[in-house]
Amino acid sequence: MAFIVAPQAVVRPGIIELRWGTPDLSLLPVEEVGAAAQEMLRLAGPLALDYGTNEGPEALRAALAARIARREGRPPGLDEIAITDGISPALHQLAGLLVRPGDAVLVEDPGYSLALGLLRDLGIEPVGVPFDADGLDVERLPGVLSGVRERGLRPRLLYTIPTFHNPTGRSLAGERRRRLVELAVEEDLLIVEDDVYRELWYDVASPPSLWRLAADVDGGTDHVVRLGSFSKSLAPGLRCGFLTGSPALVRRYADSGLIDSAGCLSQFTSLIVAVLLHDGAYDGIVERFRQAYRERRDALVAGLKGALPEGCSCTEPGGGYFVWVSLPPDLTAARLRSFAEPAGVSFVGGAAFSVSRADHGLRLCFAMYGPEELTEGAVRLGRAIRLALEER
Amino acid sequence: MAFIVAPQAVVRPGIIELRWGTPDLSLLPVEEVGAAAQEMLRLAGPLALDYGTNEGPEALRAALAARIARREGRPPGLDEIAITDGISPALHQLAGLLVRPGDAVLVEDPGYSLALGLLRDLGIEPVGVPFDADGLDVERLPGVLSGVRERGLRPRLLYTIPTFHNPTGRSLAGERRRRLVELAVEEDLLIVEDDVYRELWYDVASPPSLWRLAADVDGGTDHVVRLGSFSKSLAPGLRCGFLTGSPALVRRYADSGLIDSAGCLSQFTSLIVAVLLHDGAYDGIVERFRQAYRERRDALVAGLKGALPEGCSCTEPGGGYFVWVSLPPDLTAARLRSFAEPAGVSFVGGAAFSVSRADHGLRLCFAMYGPEELTEGAVRLGRAIRLALEER
Repeated sequence: MAFIVAPQAVVRPGIIELRWGTPDLSLLPVEEVGAAAQEMLRLAGPLALDYGTNEGPEALRAALAARIARREGRPPGLDEIAITDGISPALHQLAGLLVRPGDAVLVEDPGYSLALGLLRDLGIEPVGVPFDADGLDVERLPGVLSGVRERGLRPRLLYTIPTFHNPTGRSLAGERRRRLVELAVEEDLLIVEDDVYRELWYDVASPPSLWRLAADVDGGTDHVVRLGSFSKSLAPGLRCGFLTGSPALVRRYADSGLIDSAGCLSQFTSLIVAVLLHDGAYDGIVERFRQAYRERRDALVAGLKGALPEGCSCTEPGGGYFVWVSLPPDLTAARLRSFAEPAGVSFVGGAAFSVSRADHGLRLCFAMYGPEELTEGAVRLGRAIRLALEER
Repeated sequence: MAFIVAPQAVVRPGIIELRWGTPDLSLLPVEEVGAAAQEMLRLAGPLALDYGTNEGPEALRAALAARIARREGRPPGLDEIAITDGISPALHQLAGLLVRPGDAVLVEDPGYSLALGLLRDLGIEPVGVPFDADGLDVERLPGVLSGVRERGLRPRLLYTIPTFHNPTGRSLAGERRRRLVELAVEEDLLIVEDDVYRELWYDVASPPSLWRLAADVDGGTDHVVRLGSFSKSLAPGLRCGFLTGSPALVRRYADSGLIDSAGCLSQFTSLIVAVLLHDGAYDGIVERFRQAYRERRDALVAGLKGALPEGCSCTEPGGGYFVWVSLPPDLTAARLRSFAEPAGVSFVGGAAFSVSRADHGLRLCFAMYGPEELTEGAVRLGRAIRLALEER
């Protein structure tokens, strides 16, 4: 029997598929992970195969706590970290635990499409918060919350990607970060911070996490949970992530029926990650990603600047995976698609990310292709936009 | 930094901990998994580290389909199988997708405690169905459903472990199996069949799954989803399972926001499992488990028969992990605990498994200890029960 394995990202012949938010296979650390798996089994033996502790192996939590202390300047206690199987499962679990009928969940508009999807799957219809060049519009948040309360709902969670946001690549501006945490305290809202791109900065180090800033705000630590991940900094197939939050929140997660039944949801792979953190290989891998993606980000942004017609613009992200292209008001992403795909380039259209179904933006991922293909992709996209505008 | 890994099962000094439903570390296939991990990386390369396809790798789905066809006589199509990260996460995901306010979820009483917990975490208060020596009392199910409807609720899901049930070790009697599927069709109820113990039979091969029987009942295939797992037949730490169901159900699972975001939730480990299935090592491991657990089941049952005072009884399971001890009506498990733990033996008391909080049963696991300790555990338990009965 053949051993058939396919990637999630389907690539159609002749199309530069900028629609997938997935890494380049050639960058993934196969050798390092293979060696770490053997070393891990030597160190952990059958414990790697058994039900793990609900909060995840101390080998990884301790290494992470040390790393977070060094990098972020706020050392989490071991009771403030749990290992997860990635950000989406952790968000799903927290939403299932904490959101009840009558509760509202707030999201950025535009916000991460599949997070919207997983919330809707739980019967939650998310409420959008306006978003601009400086990220989530914190000054307009109280108005959104009032509107939610007027509809008889209780604002419960705010899901946000403040650092190298998906889909725009933008980061929440410095002065807004602290204010957002203060508002969460005032409004008794739990911020669920999706911090997946923290390691992937290309110019200057990532801004402080909301979780980090929460320590400086009275009552802040009870109002922010940060979801971290090794999917973008190491390998998504390992399905390993973590969360940092208050001891009570960590316990609520770890003592839940699901986790109590399954034990750590990434027991085997989280121990591989622990070895890579312990032996320092992780830092080398992250640095390799950073160099490769920086070059790709540069290629795509430069390509777009040269290729986009007047009336369009693109973000210039300092990290992460994505560039966002804004289209002229009279061109939707849905209409553009019928020009772009025949021209050999794909994207995810704005409507997928928008609670209000606004469809005048495009998400382009620069992680999966090398610089030359990204440049060509930008040229094709520019050509497709021109065609679409001409045929109005 | 030390590399600290602990098992989920905490063992207190001097206590034979029959409360944990976990395998014996010494049986876990460390060498086989280590070798399979290397072979897997050779075969799959970076695809093992990438986002996997939503329905899971074909390498595992195809091997599973062939195995299920051979063992169960109903060959599932590849569009009728999805790879999961275990039964509890799959149940959690299906409940989140399918159950809405006003829907009722039915469970066996007694039923698996942590499944009750994960349903409650989603805001679902499960409804108990009576259970007797032949398993779920199928003839009383229509009455329960009428009661649910009279309360204005719609019966939506029935979660059941028909084969080597947790906590009792009992299996649903043959004649009840088909009738249960027929009732699910008549009542438009989805049966979620937790089939975790299928491989662990010790006397005669496991009874046919409800999923298998659904093919013989008009409309049956749309009303049963079977959740399978490698946690008991291989290693829980791999967090790998599968589901078989209708193509529509499989798509609903695989296309959900959570899975679409994360890809296959056990990408790396499911490929290890695929290698173990392809190269035949899996069969050897299962056979090893079966022999070891058969001996342990025999030791615990014989020990209990010799040690339990009059008025108590125990099940004699044909497979799985658990024996159930029934206490006399005037002794609760909660009261017994204060005698048992000082006597050096632990159990999970009935109330944890019961929607009605009935507390006159004990769940004992025979997987974690060897025969001698199990015999000693039975002696200690008998002594504790006698003491508790004398002190009335």
